[in-house]
Amino acid sequence: MKVEGRWRRTIELADNQASVDVLDQAALPYEIKWLRLSTLAEVARAIRDMHIRGAPLIGATAAYGVAIALRHDPKSLDEACAVLAATRPTAINLKWALDDMRRRIADVAVSERAAAAFAAAAQICDEDVAICEAIGQHGLAVIRAAAERSGPEAGPLGSMTRGRANRPVQVLTHCNAGWLATVDWGTALAPVYKAFEAGIALHVWVDETRPRNQGLLTAWELAQHGVAHTVIADNAGGHLMQQGAVDLCIVGTDRTTRSGDVCNKIGTYLKALAAHDNQVPFYAAVPSPSIDWTIDDGSAIPIEERSGDEVRFIAGHDEAGRPARTQVVGQGSAVANPAFDVTPRRLVTGLITERGIAEPTRASLAALFPEHRR
Amino acid sequence: MKVEGRWRRTIELADNQASVDVLDQAALPYEIKWLRLSTLAEVARAIRDMHIRGAPLIGATAAYGVAIALRHDPKSLDEACAVLAATRPTAINLKWALDDMRRRIADVAVSERAAAAFAAAAQICDEDVAICEAIGQHGLAVIRAAAERSGPEAGPLGSMTRGRANRPVQVLTHCNAGWLATVDWGTALAPVYKAFEAGIALHVWVDETRPRNQGLLTAWELAQHGVAHTVIADNAGGHLMQQGAVDLCIVGTDRTTRSGDVCNKIGTYLKALAAHDNQVPFYAAVPSPSIDWTIDDGSAIPIEERSGDEVRFIAGHDEAGRPARTQVVGQGSAVANPAFDVTPRRLVTGLITERGIAEPTRASLAALFPEHRR
Repeated sequence: MKVEGRWRRTIELADNQASVDVLDQAALPYEIKWLRLSTLAEVARAIRDMHIRGAPLIGATAAYGVAIALRHDPKSLDEACAVLAATRPTAINLKWALDDMRRRIADVAVSERAAAAFAAAAQICDEDVAICEAIGQHGLAVIRAAAERSGPEAGPLGSMTRGRANRPVQVLTHCNAGWLATVDWGTALAPVYKAFEAGIALHVWVDETRPRNQGLLTAWELAQHGVAHTVIADNAGGHLMQQGAVDLCIVGTDRTTRSGDVCNKIGTYLKALAAHDNQVPFYAAVPSPSIDWTIDDGSAIPIEERSGDEVRFIAGHDEAGRPARTQVVGQGSAVANPAFDVTPRRLVTGLITERGIAEPTRASLAALFPEHRR
Repeated sequence: MKVEGRWRRTIELADNQASVDVLDQAALPYEIKWLRLSTLAEVARAIRDMHIRGAPLIGATAAYGVAIALRHDPKSLDEACAVLAATRPTAINLKWALDDMRRRIADVAVSERAAAAFAAAAQICDEDVAICEAIGQHGLAVIRAAAERSGPEAGPLGSMTRGRANRPVQVLTHCNAGWLATVDWGTALAPVYKAFEAGIALHVWVDETRPRNQGLLTAWELAQHGVAHTVIADNAGGHLMQQGAVDLCIVGTDRTTRSGDVCNKIGTYLKALAAHDNQVPFYAAVPSPSIDWTIDDGSAIPIEERSGDEVRFIAGHDEAGRPARTQVVGQGSAVANPAFDVTPRRLVTGLITERGIAEPTRASLAALFPEHRR
């Protein structure tokens, strides 16, 4: 993905070969700023405070966190994993990446561990890119099918809400499961980018995604890439579906169970209900490291309760374009802030994985990933 | 309702007997400010720019708008009604109040019209108060029934999400259908206030209600009255219902069809879907002037598309407590802002009217309001 005219990844090994540079998502879209992470504490803070976010990128960053910790203390593997695992409870990729790092360096001599860990983290990043690109290819077929239903000629955006024929494919997404949530390409947005490159006329409805407004990250990404999009309040998606203005929904996931229950950003469940009620296909883009092969039922997934200040204050910029924070909820009112919800598999049309599209069933997922069949 | 220690209505005849004073809801909850409306143009602007809002209060204010216009020009009835009718397309109360004013002064001599119109507007306000209080009484029974299911002893708030027994009744509401949306009492919140006065332990989940954050008006009202409440992002309600943390939903309406389709603030439909999916009773508080007796199907209701700037900018206050406006969506992204949606009657448990609770069917509504049976 291009940032300020250069092809970049969201996480890159620094010139010193001992730190990583990450694009600071807490500053976006108001400021493009790179953070250098050089210690375990810095990596943990970047994940916990959401300077980096998105399940795949959390995993990739945690992998580098292990490497950075081992460079300071080659015997600190257990401690590093414990510190990193505690940063975000819901994303399974975090656990997956830490387990993967352990496996990759378990048999390496202590003196070689840091170097091996940096190599392993780089490999995890490259694999993430390959996974996302493959999700893009498989998802492209879904968008292409919707385009064929919408008619071969792309109509003007103005006709968007007037029927399904002869207008760009209308995709609705929630949160940010794009390039910014991964090392490159994105998960839910990878099919969008692939369709855009394939010349399919499309337009993306971008849920604002309160309370942290990650939809604005999605809007920023899409704008950088030139993809037509419209930001809407989270409340609007159901109405748009009732009006026939949405052809399909694609969302990401922080953890999907082996039976296809999809845990994702809070509010995803409401959109899945609306999609189901209006016969709009609802897909989750699910890289296999997001699949929790140990559980069936999504209600077993721990849901992170984040600080109420995320609801109480809103980040934006003032009239001079400077980053600004506005308080919206007064101190006289309590706030609650569950960060994720679980969309039951009965509301999900399909899971777009790097190996193809699975039905949201244990059998269908196991058929694509037989190595996890038990 | 008390404001700054005095019992006030949201709209009051001014001392000069020729203007009205309204509580400026565009400034709340950050500033308590009263606006004096002395001309038709001022009344129309106050409605259009949402200095006053809420379907019942829009109707009451429009009634005074007619009176104020007639005081300047006793022959301006048609013009006044046309100007006021054009301010907000969705709320049927606006049309109802204008028709009611016409009927009440049609036979009055031109020289007497202004005085008659002020008297008629005052009567519409008094009737609104009576309607809301009756809705409160009927809705109280619904909350009382939920309290009996929740168990006789009110538990601490901390136990809120841990099951339905032995804790305060958990009510979820969307937007503001409280005192501020009416002349007094509110519609959806009237049962809450009646239950609070009856000593029933209860707690209200308050949807933020993007893009205009009317939930903060609800929070402000509840805080003034001492009712326990928690503000949540609009995305959170579905998850809370999945967790069993909501006993019932009560919302207001801008227009309800004679068959019970409920048009209300954008996002209401999503909450109704979640309530239905989790067997949570979903009620709309429906004063009869909100009922459109001319249509069955909610899809015939015109949905107001408001300025995208309501999504692009968020009002709040800065760290010094001064009103501040923050830009959240960049100029590089389009925005869309449909203001209402329609909840189909199949998702509605009951309609709380001033004459009792109707099922969302034409027959049940007609049985309560036989004068509208055709």
